[in-house]
Amino acid sequence: MHRPTTFLEVDHPRLRLTLACETFQVTGSFKFRAASEVARSVPNKLLLTASSGNFGQALACAARRTGKKAIVVMPETSARVKIEAVRAQGGQVELVDVTRVSRAERVSQLAEQHPGAYQASAYDDPLVIRGNASLGRELAGRGFDCAISPVGGGGLISGIVTGLGAARPRVLGAEPLLANDAARSLREGRLLANESEPRTVADGARTVSLGRHNWEIIRQGVEDILEVNEESIGHAVRWLFLKANLKVEPTGALAVAAVLAAPERFSDQNVCCVISGGNVDPALYASLLSAGI
Amino acid sequence: MHRPTTFLEVDHPRLRLTLACETFQVTGSFKFRAASEVARSVPNKLLLTASSGNFGQALACAARRTGKKAIVVMPETSARVKIEAVRAQGGQVELVDVTRVSRAERVSQLAEQHPGAYQASAYDDPLVIRGNASLGRELAGRGFDCAISPVGGGGLISGIVTGLGAARPRVLGAEPLLANDAARSLREGRLLANESEPRTVADGARTVSLGRHNWEIIRQGVEDILEVNEESIGHAVRWLFLKANLKVEPTGALAVAAVLAAPERFSDQNVCCVISGGNVDPALYASLLSAGI
Repeated sequence: MHRPTTFLEVDHPRLRLTLACETFQVTGSFKFRAASEVARSVPNKLLLTASSGNFGQALACAARRTGKKAIVVMPETSARVKIEAVRAQGGQVELVDVTRVSRAERVSQLAEQHPGAYQASAYDDPLVIRGNASLGRELAGRGFDCAISPVGGGGLISGIVTGLGAARPRVLGAEPLLANDAARSLREGRLLANESEPRTVADGARTVSLGRHNWEIIRQGVEDILEVNEESIGHAVRWLFLKANLKVEPTGALAVAAVLAAPERFSDQNVCCVISGGNVDPALYASLLSAGI
Repeated sequence: MHRPTTFLEVDHPRLRLTLACETFQVTGSFKFRAASEVARSVPNKLLLTASSGNFGQALACAARRTGKKAIVVMPETSARVKIEAVRAQGGQVELVDVTRVSRAERVSQLAEQHPGAYQASAYDDPLVIRGNASLGRELAGRGFDCAISPVGGGGLISGIVTGLGAARPRVLGAEPLLANDAARSLREGRLLANESEPRTVADGARTVSLGRHNWEIIRQGVEDILEVNEESIGHAVRWLFLKANLKVEPTGALAVAAVLAAPERFSDQNVCCVISGGNVDPALYASLLSAGI
């Protein structure tokens, strides 16, 4: 089972700011909520997914805890700590040279080899949304005026909207400017994609577009998507280190980055920023810290 | 008022391990418990202390919140972030060249100038113990077999023992081997001091000896003091970063360092490690992370 989120209040001269930290969730990110929902709900004994990040680790852990197996397709170039994290959870890692075979193709090949396997999407799956809705329920009834969530494929924010139902708070998203497909989609009222995988430091938001299931929920339930530049993301990682004693991965800092970039928009409001995860390579983290010294 | 501690469970193959994190306490360390007790309890409007670290920041914050003022004597060589942290809380910083005047002398001079001021000790004061006892009460009744606390001047661990009273868990201390006055004192049954200020990376444990008030409580209520070498402290900081997504200062990692160095001693026990604080200079933290890459 997933753990409840960790609410932390942070002092800020102009804001009432609470963080909903999923950095202490099982496997270090919100992804375990969805992964455990998938592993519990489907009858299949083998779970297949493509993920270079938190979902792979979460699915491997959820599979192990439910007596199942997981195969995670990862690019050869994935950070070593991430590959090791999947293996440490008992997951089988399939490395692919993405210049020759796409991750999706490799998953299809594996699905043919293992006809009884369930192909789990990291974000575009009603079970994922249902799993992440548990966080929405935790945010309800705490007096927040608005909740701001990172947006990559949209699984987290659509889960939050679903879990909140008609309850407050209002929901906003935060997305890297370099990967602003969700912001553009909401402005234009139709699902748009990035031209290629965006190069943002927020690796959890390097998705080409929102999932279709997520988009239907986001277009109706999300007030706005705030675009955050790369400098602001690094600044937010350092700010959380200095002011909140929190170790956060770049994607996890997106909501805080959006608020710090425009605090006047949120003054006199009771704001909750969702910190989606904390898993970050130590070398990258050290370099982000050093950039501010 | 202080915040309740944050309990986090961490996966470990051989241990049932819970962290009691004071890194999210007001001003980022347990010191705020004692500082707010002092500020609330004494009638004096001006609080004076010598501290290069967490107590100065905590006292400045506690003074501000109770409508009082604080003067904090710090060495000229203190980390800039620490000086700024005291000032950000509205505290007045008095920098001293410790090669010419000791911190204690400078506090005495200031006390003469301000006869109405209260001289607050960072650890050797019954009010400090009473403030830290609130953490002991939070640890009681949660099924822990033992609680392990960092030891510097002894204010934290004697507060924990006091707050627990006759309740479980058993209490052990963790101290840098380079600053092992408490371990030696407990072995010999009398209060011993280090010859000079120890050079351990755990700057919160660079005290010359335990406080007298603390020693009377420790000698009766603490089962053992575990000595931790410098390498283990750095290892524990990195382990907490990787396995628990926690940003911890070296002193805060002492208890975990002690457990990781001798897990067999704690197997089949429900162990609680107190993480005393998280305030660490970004450059030092980045170098501790890099040492393990």
